[in-house]
Amino acid sequence: MKMQINSRGNARFKRWLQLLNSRGVHKHQQFLMFGERVVREILHTQPDRCLELIYPVLWANDLSVPETVTHHCLEGPLFKELDVFGTKTPIAVCRTPEIVDWNQKEAPQGLELLCPLGDPKNVGAVVRTCQALGVQKVILLKEAASPFHPASTRSASGAVLNVEFVKGPSIHDLNHDQILTTLVAMDVSGKNLTTYRWPKHVRLLIGEEGEGLPESSAAEKVAIPMTKGTSSLNAAVAAGMAMYAYRVQHKL
Amino acid sequence: MKMQINSRGNARFKRWLQLLNSRGVHKHQQFLMFGERVVREILHTQPDRCLELIYPVLWANDLSVPETVTHHCLEGPLFKELDVFGTKTPIAVCRTPEIVDWNQKEAPQGLELLCPLGDPKNVGAVVRTCQALGVQKVILLKEAASPFHPASTRSASGAVLNVEFVKGPSIHDLNHDQILTTLVAMDVSGKNLTTYRWPKHVRLLIGEEGEGLPESSAAEKVAIPMTKGTSSLNAAVAAGMAMYAYRVQHKL
Repeated sequence: MKMQINSRGNARFKRWLQLLNSRGVHKHQQFLMFGERVVREILHTQPDRCLELIYPVLWANDLSVPETVTHHCLEGPLFKELDVFGTKTPIAVCRTPEIVDWNQKEAPQGLELLCPLGDPKNVGAVVRTCQALGVQKVILLKEAASPFHPASTRSASGAVLNVEFVKGPSIHDLNHDQILTTLVAMDVSGKNLTTYRWPKHVRLLIGEEGEGLPESSAAEKVAIPMTKGTSSLNAAVAAGMAMYAYRVQHKL
Repeated sequence: MKMQINSRGNARFKRWLQLLNSRGVHKHQQFLMFGERVVREILHTQPDRCLELIYPVLWANDLSVPETVTHHCLEGPLFKELDVFGTKTPIAVCRTPEIVDWNQKEAPQGLELLCPLGDPKNVGAVVRTCQALGVQKVILLKEAASPFHPASTRSASGAVLNVEFVKGPSIHDLNHDQILTTLVAMDVSGKNLTTYRWPKHVRLLIGEEGEGLPESSAAEKVAIPMTKGTSSLNAAVAAGMAMYAYRVQHKL
């Protein structure tokens, strides 16, 4: 049974609106999932993560969900305000997984990613690549946008619940021997990526959008060979090439 | 000398607003470039392409440009309305290059790209990869968004003026022997990309977002190996991996 919400003053609606930005996601430890396929998938594979379902008024059938999930229906303009991608399909409100601090003493297991990306769309695209290429741990640096920002969950296409996130330091605080021994960073000054020999257990550090890698970084570096006069790629595209290069040598 | 525009009714302002969508870009054969670095670059490398410069009121110095370029200044809210990425820096109005029909009888020269992507952000990211990896010709299929849509020029970071675009058919009309002999398409059913031997002169066809490749496609196919249960990557990331794989075998 759906409860219809018709007022902007409704407490639930106000909370949902807050989930459209990182601050609200952090405050409530909840996030929104958009897109019918992705929402059905999460209800099927991780039903316990789902707290509420928000329907547009004209949605005919309720989705099949655990009893603990509450159903709500949002009057036209209110749904439109929340449905920032214009999906016109039910939106799921989910609990964010707990993100613990990164244990810097732990050795990497296979390939892991250090992510400083500030654009949630890029974070989502990178997380989607991680899931597809079997990179199971993503270390979120202080500079990184929340992977549970709607722009990230949308571009990750459901993948945000299938990788493990841990909370890391700033990209400027990675110059310790313990970290450096198992670190490879992407930088235009690096060794040629196409001939680089990857260690099996290693962490890949990608640069920030626009900023790249801090000049002070003492990490081993790899570079994508590019035509003269060009020096940059989309951050998620560049990260994808490096993860792909690793997988060429260390198969799934 | 700048002419200040204070009215939404101004004919120039109305034209500029139209350049925020593909229809306007097509109608006027003009497009907008955002971002100080990108605008300075185009004024330096391709000044003849620039027609008008639009400044926010508080911009101190005019940019150095050819005399043919007219300078305009937009009153606060009007600039904000046009400055959709919130750059707060001058916006350049440029002429779109002429895009001729693709000559299907011509053999490919090195790697060329067939692009059906409908999301201009993805088109821009792919074009940026093409420039960086030396893919000089992009065949825009009927399904493709305009590379001169602002979301594309923004994500291409200036690269849209450094590759050659030609107008191709629909992704559904590529099943001719003449095209198929030099075509490689990305599809989950394809040969393993990590071991695929690339012809030197070849065209890469990427699938549409969500849709992928038409089932009827008779093209040779390559696939990025992925973990079980995942079947997709961001379109620009996947295209980047394939172009990178080509470049591993055929160096720049």
